[in-house]
Amino acid sequence: MEDTRLSTSAKAEKRAPFSNLVNALPATVPFVPPEQTERQLGRRFQLRLGANESSFGLSPMAKQALIDAAAETNWYGDATNDALRQKLSRLHGVPMESIAVGAGIDEILGWIARLFLNPGDGVTTSHGSYPTFHYHVNGFGGVLHWVPYRHFYNDCEGLARQAHATGSRIVYLANPDNPTGTFLKQEDIRELRRQLPADCVLVIDEAYVEFAPAEDVLPLDANDPNVIRTRTFSKVYGLAGARVGYAIAHPDTIASFDKIRNHFGVARAAQQAALASLADSDFLNRVIAFVNEGKTDYSTLAQELGYTTLPSATNFVAIDTGSEKAARWWMDALEKQGVFIRVPGVAPLNRCLRITVGNQEERNILAHHMKKLKPQVPINEETR
Amino acid sequence: MEDTRLSTSAKAEKRAPFSNLVNALPATVPFVPPEQTERQLGRRFQLRLGANESSFGLSPMAKQALIDAAAETNWYGDATNDALRQKLSRLHGVPMESIAVGAGIDEILGWIARLFLNPGDGVTTSHGSYPTFHYHVNGFGGVLHWVPYRHFYNDCEGLARQAHATGSRIVYLANPDNPTGTFLKQEDIRELRRQLPADCVLVIDEAYVEFAPAEDVLPLDANDPNVIRTRTFSKVYGLAGARVGYAIAHPDTIASFDKIRNHFGVARAAQQAALASLADSDFLNRVIAFVNEGKTDYSTLAQELGYTTLPSATNFVAIDTGSEKAARWWMDALEKQGVFIRVPGVAPLNRCLRITVGNQEERNILAHHMKKLKPQVPINEETR
Repeated sequence: MEDTRLSTSAKAEKRAPFSNLVNALPATVPFVPPEQTERQLGRRFQLRLGANESSFGLSPMAKQALIDAAAETNWYGDATNDALRQKLSRLHGVPMESIAVGAGIDEILGWIARLFLNPGDGVTTSHGSYPTFHYHVNGFGGVLHWVPYRHFYNDCEGLARQAHATGSRIVYLANPDNPTGTFLKQEDIRELRRQLPADCVLVIDEAYVEFAPAEDVLPLDANDPNVIRTRTFSKVYGLAGARVGYAIAHPDTIASFDKIRNHFGVARAAQQAALASLADSDFLNRVIAFVNEGKTDYSTLAQELGYTTLPSATNFVAIDTGSEKAARWWMDALEKQGVFIRVPGVAPLNRCLRITVGNQEERNILAHHMKKLKPQVPINEETR
Repeated sequence: MEDTRLSTSAKAEKRAPFSNLVNALPATVPFVPPEQTERQLGRRFQLRLGANESSFGLSPMAKQALIDAAAETNWYGDATNDALRQKLSRLHGVPMESIAVGAGIDEILGWIARLFLNPGDGVTTSHGSYPTFHYHVNGFGGVLHWVPYRHFYNDCEGLARQAHATGSRIVYLANPDNPTGTFLKQEDIRELRRQLPADCVLVIDEAYVEFAPAEDVLPLDANDPNVIRTRTFSKVYGLAGARVGYAIAHPDTIASFDKIRNHFGVARAAQQAALASLADSDFLNRVIAFVNEGKTDYSTLAQELGYTTLPSATNFVAIDTGSEKAARWWMDALEKQGVFIRVPGVAPLNRCLRITVGNQEERNILAHHMKKLKPQVPINEETR
């Protein structure tokens, strides 16, 4: 009886008072997961090519590490991620004090927004760049300032100009870029860094960097307090489900992450799987070769369909259908065939189909569906 | 050459400008992980009984789920945690809209601090309660107001009075409590809820609730916007390393978590292991029985050593050594024997040894060490 009275009296009270920041936030999620679409459709996707997960799986050594770690799941992971940071330190030639490990780049982008932004602070990025970064900037009260892509490339000059004009504290770009797949060489990034305001931090999200030409990637430099690089085991290493990524930055920045991060946040098995992945460079090279092969296939397919592709330094390809309507039609039509892909939300990217490079079998099925569907594309949706 | 000049010029600039909140934070971590102590000692612990990890492992069904999930690690987990929330909804008889799943209670405590606190807002809790909660409150600019434990129990009257006096937005207690192990029955919690200010949220951290007498646990009620319960798979289910916990709260609160949480933050395998754990109630009951047996052993051991134990509704026991000096001596002496335990940092809890209930073998080894060490306890450190 008391319970009932308690509930009733509680209901009559005003709702729990959230913080001003939270009250100002819209109800939004960065991405609808494919599982939710599957529940809405009432069936599983046949092809899961919309989240840039690796169709080439994980290293057999990483898989074994996960299996071996299962029995030790009753133990927390090492909150300092020491072993993994040591190994990454040797791999990248930077001190381990300049490496922070988190539960994927998504979590780390949250740390970055929180670390640098006072409410109202400006952040500059390309219009249509990674929604989860925008989500975290909004979540900590930052104000986003957009710069249009320039021919589907991040516009470094535009970003620097906008950063000055708005007094931005952060400039963010993904390089290689998502959702376009395009890549800027180290000269361009170095020039962008040089052009930024002195108190502005350049965040380079390198989730796909292993697919880019190594010689064109800006060398790592943990001495620059105004640059943060983020990397992940979710893409080329095929460990998206394990949640492990890292940031390379100035030691002061890494030490400051320690003031705010969820210290025991990385799964113990994920630490082991990441370590094992780094020991299997053969697998890494095989995946890169497979993905390159797949990208050639996608180019050929796009040509056959009368479309072009954007150059890709990632594990996905953006196929330019020429119009937003056509892209949307394709996404819906493919979904009906059980194929999950994404179409970016912002013009002009929204005329592209962003399709993860599948394995040979997946590419065959995709090509089959797309060639069969092509004659049905409504003609008036084909014009630019 | 350009690289070098870039670094030099960057070094000459002032360090990256962190937010006001971050600048005000001390460099602190909630807990030093045992791995770090091991590295300092130069050897592995023989007994790991300091983090209340389950010495009874995980359900064989959960272990199998982890192994089965390994091959699918290339896929992200479902960001909505739908299947797990459905199952928890049926188990607890609350709508799934009142359940949020996160990467352990630690992550969820961060969400809670962020959801409710404007900088400067007050939070009331017992002096010596869970350090990770304090860490998150500080991290979001909250101000902690302490209430002493009352005979090693959370002092409900004191907490309510302090919440009124300080205008606190949150009152936090762990129930069963950590680090004391004591437990407050539903009548006490209900009275505490009734005494709180109308705009104050009561957070009940129930990480150890499965070890408490079920009939004395406050029934779940997702209709009260001013109560949040947190639970975990880290303790009785033995999945600490997988990072999965959940909150049960009013649907408005759960929806607001969606505005700020890291949506793809829970590992895919962790979701599967949690589901499998819930299907293995035999294992759950066995662990509870084993832990109860172990607690009896610890009481006997404490008696043999001339000490008392605090009543425990958890998977650990606080042994009251009578003085801070004695407790610290024991911790150091046990560490030298390769035994990891913890001593709480705050008086009067700091005269207790907080020891996780080990399995039979671990308890034998612990008893062996403690009985052998007992004659060496410096006599002048034994006085209260």
